[in-house]
Amino acid sequence: MAEHKLANGAARIDFQTEPARYRHWKLTVDGEVATLALDVDENAGLFEGYQLKLNSYDLGVDIELADALQRLRFEHPGVKAVLLRSAKNRVFCAGANIRMLAGASHAHKVNFCKFTNETRNAIEDASRNSGLSFVCVINGTAAGGGYELALAADHIILVDDGSSAVSLPELPLLAVLPGTGGLTRVTDKRRVRRDHADVFCTTEEGVKGKRAVAWRLVDEVVPQSKLDTAATERARERAGRSQRQANGGGVKLTPLQRKFNGDAIDYTCVNVAIDRAGQSATITLHGPDRDAPTNTASLTELGAEFWPLRLARELDDAILHLRNNEFEIGTLIFKSTGDVERVLAYDTFLADNASHWLINEIRQLWKNVLKRIDVTSRSLVTVIEPGSCFAGTLAEVVLACDRSYMLIGQREGDNKPPATIALSALNFGAYPMSNDLTRLQSRFLGEPHRVQVAQERSGEKLEAEDADELGLVTFALDDIDWDDEIRVFMEERTSFSPDALTGMEANLRFGGPETMESKIFARLTAWQNWIFQRPNAVGEDGALKRYGTGQKAAFDMRRV
Amino acid sequence: MAEHKLANGAARIDFQTEPARYRHWKLTVDGEVATLALDVDENAGLFEGYQLKLNSYDLGVDIELADALQRLRFEHPGVKAVLLRSAKNRVFCAGANIRMLAGASHAHKVNFCKFTNETRNAIEDASRNSGLSFVCVINGTAAGGGYELALAADHIILVDDGSSAVSLPELPLLAVLPGTGGLTRVTDKRRVRRDHADVFCTTEEGVKGKRAVAWRLVDEVVPQSKLDTAATERARERAGRSQRQANGGGVKLTPLQRKFNGDAIDYTCVNVAIDRAGQSATITLHGPDRDAPTNTASLTELGAEFWPLRLARELDDAILHLRNNEFEIGTLIFKSTGDVERVLAYDTFLADNASHWLINEIRQLWKNVLKRIDVTSRSLVTVIEPGSCFAGTLAEVVLACDRSYMLIGQREGDNKPPATIALSALNFGAYPMSNDLTRLQSRFLGEPHRVQVAQERSGEKLEAEDADELGLVTFALDDIDWDDEIRVFMEERTSFSPDALTGMEANLRFGGPETMESKIFARLTAWQNWIFQRPNAVGEDGALKRYGTGQKAAFDMRRV
Repeated sequence: MAEHKLANGAARIDFQTEPARYRHWKLTVDGEVATLALDVDENAGLFEGYQLKLNSYDLGVDIELADALQRLRFEHPGVKAVLLRSAKNRVFCAGANIRMLAGASHAHKVNFCKFTNETRNAIEDASRNSGLSFVCVINGTAAGGGYELALAADHIILVDDGSSAVSLPELPLLAVLPGTGGLTRVTDKRRVRRDHADVFCTTEEGVKGKRAVAWRLVDEVVPQSKLDTAATERARERAGRSQRQANGGGVKLTPLQRKFNGDAIDYTCVNVAIDRAGQSATITLHGPDRDAPTNTASLTELGAEFWPLRLARELDDAILHLRNNEFEIGTLIFKSTGDVERVLAYDTFLADNASHWLINEIRQLWKNVLKRIDVTSRSLVTVIEPGSCFAGTLAEVVLACDRSYMLIGQREGDNKPPATIALSALNFGAYPMSNDLTRLQSRFLGEPHRVQVAQERSGEKLEAEDADELGLVTFALDDIDWDDEIRVFMEERTSFSPDALTGMEANLRFGGPETMESKIFARLTAWQNWIFQRPNAVGEDGALKRYGTGQKAAFDMRRV
Repeated sequence: MAEHKLANGAARIDFQTEPARYRHWKLTVDGEVATLALDVDENAGLFEGYQLKLNSYDLGVDIELADALQRLRFEHPGVKAVLLRSAKNRVFCAGANIRMLAGASHAHKVNFCKFTNETRNAIEDASRNSGLSFVCVINGTAAGGGYELALAADHIILVDDGSSAVSLPELPLLAVLPGTGGLTRVTDKRRVRRDHADVFCTTEEGVKGKRAVAWRLVDEVVPQSKLDTAATERARERAGRSQRQANGGGVKLTPLQRKFNGDAIDYTCVNVAIDRAGQSATITLHGPDRDAPTNTASLTELGAEFWPLRLARELDDAILHLRNNEFEIGTLIFKSTGDVERVLAYDTFLADNASHWLINEIRQLWKNVLKRIDVTSRSLVTVIEPGSCFAGTLAEVVLACDRSYMLIGQREGDNKPPATIALSALNFGAYPMSNDLTRLQSRFLGEPHRVQVAQERSGEKLEAEDADELGLVTFALDDIDWDDEIRVFMEERTSFSPDALTGMEANLRFGGPETMESKIFARLTAWQNWIFQRPNAVGEDGALKRYGTGQKAAFDMRRV
């Protein structure tokens, strides 16, 4: 199957954009209420070979949405409610573009769904943690991914015009699942009765009017003539109830400084070095180059230059780049350089000023970047050497990894003092995983008292043997074994099947409870990935391939 | 890829067996302690084309294990602890047979794992709900499925002989996951630290000795010379703490009466009628042919003839047969005939005597049969017509279905009174799903008060419109629409991709919380099914195919 090429000769998928460059979304702010209007430019698809008709989307559309959400959080702290709507007549959104899906590689389909899932989660996260309430106005067709987008909102208004419906036609039309959280949000968020859900998800034309309300699929239906009034009213009501601190000036998310140099990517405090032969990338995080502020007065002035914000944005971009452009890079190696105490001082500042709106947003961003790492289908390892600064927030990266290696003492011929790691208050609640536990709680499911023991050592610089004793690192090794052990690990990892690693890591990383969010990445996504491999969906005679050809799909009717 | 044929010319996989026919297990009872010894006959594989070396297993081995567990529960109520061990020297169990897996169809692999998962769950269920404690004695190799079997026990003893280890070598050796609950039990039951789990699951030779204890993989290591003594001691200690009521006579699980007649299967109170053109099977459940007992005195005398026990066993066998032998039968239609009040009387008897050991076992069996229905990858529908008896325990079948149709009033030309359904006390806690909610709680996640409303109508015979009003059925239809609506539903279902239906149903059936058990069927199994489709595992150059050929697998190194 011929895979699509990126449009306009682009060499890679770029996750950086800004409102002035949006092709598909319009972000407008009117006091406490912002409007995010979807107006897809059908000729501006990310790849060649399809048009984005009927407000259907591809990854490019979603990259803009993710960007707009971040800007609402950082640049517009006065906004308290967001109207999510369409700028086109009688169509809200037709969902993920089918021709794009039909021509996409398996890996792209899976990563596309992962990113769109993260963006839907970001909507809910902004609502829960930033007081940004989302009202979705469905003025016409809301099919598949279109309805899934609506499902991420707090309140869904559907026009009652006798024809407009919400639908999840993926199964009847395409032989795949509504894979952007649709099934899980229907059962776990909207809590639709399971037999109603069965009918809904197998009815191509969807459900409209009173039944859509009775079945809990939307919150209200409103005649066309009253749609705008109702939308504005709901948004204002919700803005009125928001806990967001009204605050004038936001912080401009200035363009990232990023340079691609062959197999290296250099940001201001993140470097990525790709080793193609070793199928790995080393991501080095740089600690702060100046001391933490002593008060919040200078914060907005620092803006996007403020080290924790800058680092989070750069790290997020690096992860997204590797995930979506570098499929053969199977292992991510995290390293760091910098001063442990300085990092701890920043964490103290982030902890002490948690109620400051900008600090809150930065902490939420870190939480989400770390969650993004959790669901990245690459082997993750931290290598902790002299000169590193895995403290507090950065120690969370260690805990997010599948394993970690820490050097005991010094390296021969290097006079840097032994490596230390440290925990801060932020390791004990600021950054929950998708299972709603902290990474330390997840780590110590079997020995929960160890969380308390670790907390008592918070703020202390821990050398390798102490860190090992506390259970914070996988292996503490001295210089004699160091190079060999890491080499063996890397060789081992590249000898394994990438698929099996992906499946194993997705299981071992998420012990314990599940939440709606974790179910989306587990139960729903894993089933969808299976279906994305099945000939009934993706084969030459499968439904995705035959869609729009006038030929019906031919199914192997055997149940598995 | 050539698929294996059943050995000895068998036409179908049969789930019925009895100890006298076992080829692979020896069940012995010594007072309060029973021993289940694995002694696989390598020449008695279920399919042709492989030998079951080193106590490796196939579905046939597991069918015997499942049977033995049921017999321990029903035939040996005096047993309080079970020693799970090997009858072979220096090998406990090498796991699922690799040549069997390499030659099995995708559908067989998936169903094999499903059944073995259900059997592991049955071990834990017997421990939790029947006071049967399991002590596993590992006297040598316990690899892959061998260790997964051990993981189902309450206590694992590993011999400390310098070489015997527990291992999950699936990933390094076969490029698949430990799919019989292994990953989930490691993280959620043994609560092994996730980085230790990562090391363990990527280390072909496994972990032995003190490290196995320190990493929580086993409960104790014991020298060879003390292994038998330790095993007996642990079993006796556990038997001493068991809450199981010592009781002399068990109930013999007599062979099922079952006849295959072309496309029909007739049991004493279950009939299966297969419609190959319609790709469906109608399963008719017959109500009791005599009144419920008034006291428990006659119970053991009735034994396996007791209607609820007989029906549960027959229904279980029918489901297993359809699942494993009839892949093109995509929809199961449940019907019933009988007297609603008589069924309710049985439920009252089962509710009133819940503490009687045999009643407890029958209720647990029903719980497990219903759970088996929940995870059956077929569309499930109940059709409720005049003369049916979906009451109490049988109403649970209605609630397990993806949807239900109930006829309002009478059928033209039929003078049977209108259909009714009824709830009993058993619908409100006796039969939790794998998510630990009742089916009514799962159904009414969004409107929890409806559980209470339904409970208030318990015992009442509800006609279609009442049942609909209470939210207990999907559609209440009168005679005019009846045939058409059901025909349309059946046609629709057969027009859809079976894969997409499987994925959708696995999502919609399990709204709300997850448990270790539900995670095994969701997170773990769905990922494994995906891997079971990937060329890196099952392709001609994949690890499963190349295992034992001396040729290394060739992997596509792209991460998805």
